[in-house]
Amino acid sequence: MTHKIAILGASGYTGAELVRLIATHPDLEIAALAANSKAGQGMGAVFPHLRHLDLPDLVTIDEIDFSGIDLCFCALPHKTSQEVIASLPRDLKIVDLSADFRLRDPAAYEKWYGNPHAAPELQKEAVYGLTEFYRDEIAGARLVAGTGCNAATGQYILRPLISAGVIDLDEIILDLKCAVSGAGRSLKENLLHAELSEGYHAYALGSTHRHLGEFDQEFSAIAGRPVEIQFTPHLIPANRGILATAYLRGSAQAVHDTLNAAYASEPFIEVLPLGEAPSTRHIRGSNFCHIGVVADRQAGRTTVIAALDNLTKGSSGQALQNANLMLSLNETTGLMLAPVFP
Amino acid sequence: MTHKIAILGASGYTGAELVRLIATHPDLEIAALAANSKAGQGMGAVFPHLRHLDLPDLVTIDEIDFSGIDLCFCALPHKTSQEVIASLPRDLKIVDLSADFRLRDPAAYEKWYGNPHAAPELQKEAVYGLTEFYRDEIAGARLVAGTGCNAATGQYILRPLISAGVIDLDEIILDLKCAVSGAGRSLKENLLHAELSEGYHAYALGSTHRHLGEFDQEFSAIAGRPVEIQFTPHLIPANRGILATAYLRGSAQAVHDTLNAAYASEPFIEVLPLGEAPSTRHIRGSNFCHIGVVADRQAGRTTVIAALDNLTKGSSGQALQNANLMLSLNETTGLMLAPVFP
Amino acid sequence: MTHKIAILGASGYTGAELVRLIATHPDLEIAALAANSKAGQGMGAVFPHLRHLDLPDLVTIDEIDFSGIDLCFCALPHKTSQEVIASLPRDLKIVDLSADFRLRDPAAYEKWYGNPHAAPELQKEAVYGLTEFYRDEIAGARLVAGTGCNAATGQYILRPLISAGVIDLDEIILDLKCAVSGAGRSLKENLLHAELSEGYHAYALGSTHRHLGEFDQEFSAIAGRPVEIQFTPHLIPANRGILATAYLRGSAQAVHDTLNAAYASEPFIEVLPLGEAPSTRHIRGSNFCHIGVVADRQAGRTTVIAALDNLTKGSSGQALQNANLMLSLNETTGLMLAPVFP
Amino acid sequence: MTHKIAILGASGYTGAELVRLIATHPDLEIAALAANSKAGQGMGAVFPHLRHLDLPDLVTIDEIDFSGIDLCFCALPHKTSQEVIASLPRDLKIVDLSADFRLRDPAAYEKWYGNPHAAPELQKEAVYGLTEFYRDEIAGARLVAGTGCNAATGQYILRPLISAGVIDLDEIILDLKCAVSGAGRSLKENLLHAELSEGYHAYALGSTHRHLGEFDQEFSAIAGRPVEIQFTPHLIPANRGILATAYLRGSAQAVHDTLNAAYASEPFIEVLPLGEAPSTRHIRGSNFCHIGVVADRQAGRTTVIAALDNLTKGSSGQALQNANLMLSLNETTGLMLAPVFP
Repeated sequence: MTHKIAILGASGYTGAELVRLIATHPDLEIAALAANSKAGQGMGAVFPHLRHLDLPDLVTIDEIDFSGIDLCFCALPHKTSQEVIASLPRDLKIVDLSADFRLRDPAAYEKWYGNPHAAPELQKEAVYGLTEFYRDEIAGARLVAGTGCNAATGQYILRPLISAGVIDLDEIILDLKCAVSGAGRSLKENLLHAELSEGYHAYALGSTHRHLGEFDQEFSAIAGRPVEIQFTPHLIPANRGILATAYLRGSAQAVHDTLNAAYASEPFIEVLPLGEAPSTRHIRGSNFCHIGVVADRQAGRTTVIAALDNLTKGSSGQALQNANLMLSLNETTGLMLAPVFP
Repeated sequence: MTHKIAILGASGYTGAELVRLIATHPDLEIAALAANSKAGQGMGAVFPHLRHLDLPDLVTIDEIDFSGIDLCFCALPHKTSQEVIASLPRDLKIVDLSADFRLRDPAAYEKWYGNPHAAPELQKEAVYGLTEFYRDEIAGARLVAGTGCNAATGQYILRPLISAGVIDLDEIILDLKCAVSGAGRSLKENLLHAELSEGYHAYALGSTHRHLGEFDQEFSAIAGRPVEIQFTPHLIPANRGILATAYLRGSAQAVHDTLNAAYASEPFIEVLPLGEAPSTRHIRGSNFCHIGVVADRQAGRTTVIAALDNLTKGSSGQALQNANLMLSLNETTGLMLAPVFP
Repeated sequence: MTHKIAILGASGYTGAELVRLIATHPDLEIAALAANSKAGQGMGAVFPHLRHLDLPDLVTIDEIDFSGIDLCFCALPHKTSQEVIASLPRDLKIVDLSADFRLRDPAAYEKWYGNPHAAPELQKEAVYGLTEFYRDEIAGARLVAGTGCNAATGQYILRPLISAGVIDLDEIILDLKCAVSGAGRSLKENLLHAELSEGYHAYALGSTHRHLGEFDQEFSAIAGRPVEIQFTPHLIPANRGILATAYLRGSAQAVHDTLNAAYASEPFIEVLPLGEAPSTRHIRGSNFCHIGVVADRQAGRTTVIAALDNLTKGSSGQALQNANLMLSLNETTGLMLAPVFP
Repeated sequence: MTHKIAILGASGYTGAELVRLIATHPDLEIAALAANSKAGQGMGAVFPHLRHLDLPDLVTIDEIDFSGIDLCFCALPHKTSQEVIASLPRDLKIVDLSADFRLRDPAAYEKWYGNPHAAPELQKEAVYGLTEFYRDEIAGARLVAGTGCNAATGQYILRPLISAGVIDLDEIILDLKCAVSGAGRSLKENLLHAELSEGYHAYALGSTHRHLGEFDQEFSAIAGRPVEIQFTPHLIPANRGILATAYLRGSAQAVHDTLNAAYASEPFIEVLPLGEAPSTRHIRGSNFCHIGVVADRQAGRTTVIAALDNLTKGSSGQALQNANLMLSLNETTGLMLAPVFP
């Protein structure tokens, strides 16, 4: 049976990535594409790489008849998303790719995003969309909140280790190297090719990145006590990829064993042999996450490095994985595309 | 029915690209992977981006039992390929990705490649693998010679125009901008990141590139008279893509009409509206070729620009398209992956 | 003696490049920097790569006392420049980097730029700033119009050849590969790293680029008859550099001899040995232009390739070279910086 | 007075960078260039970006008459350097850019480099070349050992902080993002454009990078007790630049005050205002190092980020700075070139 899909916010990178992935999905049909600023245009005009596909033209959200839609992806800007979703039918299955429903606590939301939440009752309903750890809840959810791409990467490293108690909770440092598509298609000076190519730098300095709200929420819940990590992201001259380097206290062997066990049956998480490290070149365009564990020369110190594609596993691929679960489809359908290398 | 496939030369970029494409092909199974220099290793060790796949380990060519193989891709170096293919069973279906069987005339082969052909009888048997123009012959062929990636790009622009007589045959200039993966994984100074990034340049100067042998052979056959084009490729700091700019004499409208008609029912060739031009960003990782036609300010002069991915449509994607035909499968199976952008 | 310099439009790439070059110039002192949108800020805040320099803060143009200024560089946007220059003291020496005074004919200006010229009397006064060919006029000029960066590159190839009559004037094709800094620091979607990296394409299709106005004006004047070339620029994923490939009719030897003779005593133009071609990696950050000549396999056809840095020799370096002449300084002062490679 | 200079190992990137810098140095003359593998060639043939310079042809080391040489730069491979330097006149001033004389302790050398030192008496004589901290010794030295580029970057952050006792010595983590030219011009697969562009990764895992030998030696000497840091370098798709992110325990204000004081009169070290971070785009091609200090959200944790150009301040620029001191020239001569941006 084919399920009818709508994508709101189809003119951004994550919207386009959803279309790319769904294009070869056997059980989903794109029935509506909305992008208010580009309504009336064909998707092939906005994204010529999709011009071979037979897609509905872009419309405004208001123009969509949601009664025929089985599931709706919201790839809208933060804050807009909560307002739009609050106006959608209450029985419509929704996968939200924005930051709006990631934090369960209204106060935490306001702290990290600077405004009170406009739909606190939906905030309560939303299930956090890190598939591997919320699989059952997602399968039964109506509204799933996609995670931050950086937040996903860090959690793939840290959740099993915190659960298993094999690392020191007060000594977690996460250094991220992030490709530029994570910043979206917005017109900012530091995203220009002339600025970024040959020019890389840290941003969201001093552990002020909003994805820390997710880390704090999730890690503290797992640990049963407050956990605060130190986190610096860096913008790298590449288009796709997040490489996370975690500096941890704990035995490398125990860390590796824990991660190996945690992900042994996961289709998309690959734990490399102890001592090997991943590269972003090996996950590009795919839903895979590679994780490597390395012992430091100093006993008791371990480095864990993870790589994933921010637009796929970090965003639209995760969203599709969750949608598959919500529609009772095989979780991996449409997502087994091999990475594109070189 | 599943067809068993072997890939010889699986440790190069085109071999890896074949595996990437076949990974989600429903009717093909990779039964053997050969790479003499890496025999004994797992494919995931050589190409970690393929580590999630359940693939046979790399072996030497001699170790393969071809009796169980339905079709063999040869992604071997030029000259090696003809020697290996000459030693394979004469009833084995083969798609060769090297340059060895592209030229039908032994003298032309020797002129462009500098050595006499080692298997001239196979050279006669081989069918030129530009699918859109040799579809029927390929479907019935035992041995198909994949085209040069530059040669494919130029022919997509020029073959219909030469056939239709809408351009001046003596005034054809082709300026190519080629991404670096077309040069393969060989260790050469000008392929280093430090040399190529921020440094682009022409090569194969003075119309000396070997793919000219293919242009000469094909265009002269179509025209029924010798046709020699002027052709300069340039190495560009990008990984995938060929952008071909052809400077032609003829009416832009006639050129556009001719290309539109020629490719109207082709699944992978997209002719853009008159006046629009393609970008390599819109075909990356896919089997699509985008073609644009532009009238020059001077009447009677027309620029045609084509973009394709050298590793996919220019090489391994084409090879799979041909294999599908040779195995009586739907030509597009496994090849409808949307381009990866950004 | 130190000459006092003002730079108007100091917050763009060409303004910053002027400061970089003047920073080690022994005879020039930057006395004023204007950028209306950033007035009040320090130059090191706008361009942190210049933070080690002791520079005046950015002001509005109105705040500058031009009585103490010996020469003023205008690195303002097109159209703004003519209005500002019309309001400056009539005895102030000016090097304009905009397009506003490149075309001598008001009708040609209006044709290519779409609006009537606001200062036609200054248009008459302005000297075209291609140093090697207008050296004497520049030395005596009050107002010098910097050339387009693409226009400079093409003219270095073509002017001597047209003068000498060694090429066919009706068969000139110029294919340019342009790095992105030539587009300036403006916020446009196609200048984003995520769009341009791995994505290159033609623009200003059909010989519609404004720099053609300069080609038409200059080449027709040299030839004594109308000359129209065919010209397609392509945007390349690199920061600095223009690589121009000219397809010409004429003897390669005659072309090479002519260029060799024309540039024998030029300090910045290097003609490579016949058969060699330049690369943008070898001129980056410098005022040098490398030119190579190659015979095609077809007799009577010749390819000439030139490389220069659009921000230096194509713009700010040229401007400084002209300023040196206007101030009776050695023409090469401050400009002998070797290219930065890799 | 002009000093005559020889450069041994002139065909690598650091050799070429020395020539670039010396090209505009008023007091140095390049009298000999050696590169055994390219002897007999002109420097402009090996490095076309230097073709405008009037340079001696490349010779073998044996062909150089050192009696007329005032100072010799050795940009030779590790291990070769110690053998060559041992054979040079004992009164020749030498700046060595290799790793051979960085470690004072023969046992430490053997531990990190795997072989016994071939010239232990020279090892004793050599002065460690981190100019800002060994200025007086360098001015009086005959043999100066250039530091590792990563080692220099880390020390600019850490030396003043260890000296001042404002950070916890047992909790120092250094995460480096290194551009590819630091790996030299060697032909390795992971340095190819097709591998590195869009593919970044950690290397020298587990604090095994050889530059740790320098950190251990220097930091332990300053602290008067053993100091071992945790250090992971990452290879980034860029040509020039090192960005070092140090995760430290200590007050951000104290750290900033300490660095500000330490570098207040240094011509090349720029400490940014508290809370700002540097970018590699702002130091490219220059001898400057930018350092930023940021307080973490957790009190008592501080991040310090430094950026420099590995080929200039990290290698050849440092070497020239030291040579200036050894020749009693102004330390900054030839080194005040502004960074090249964009």
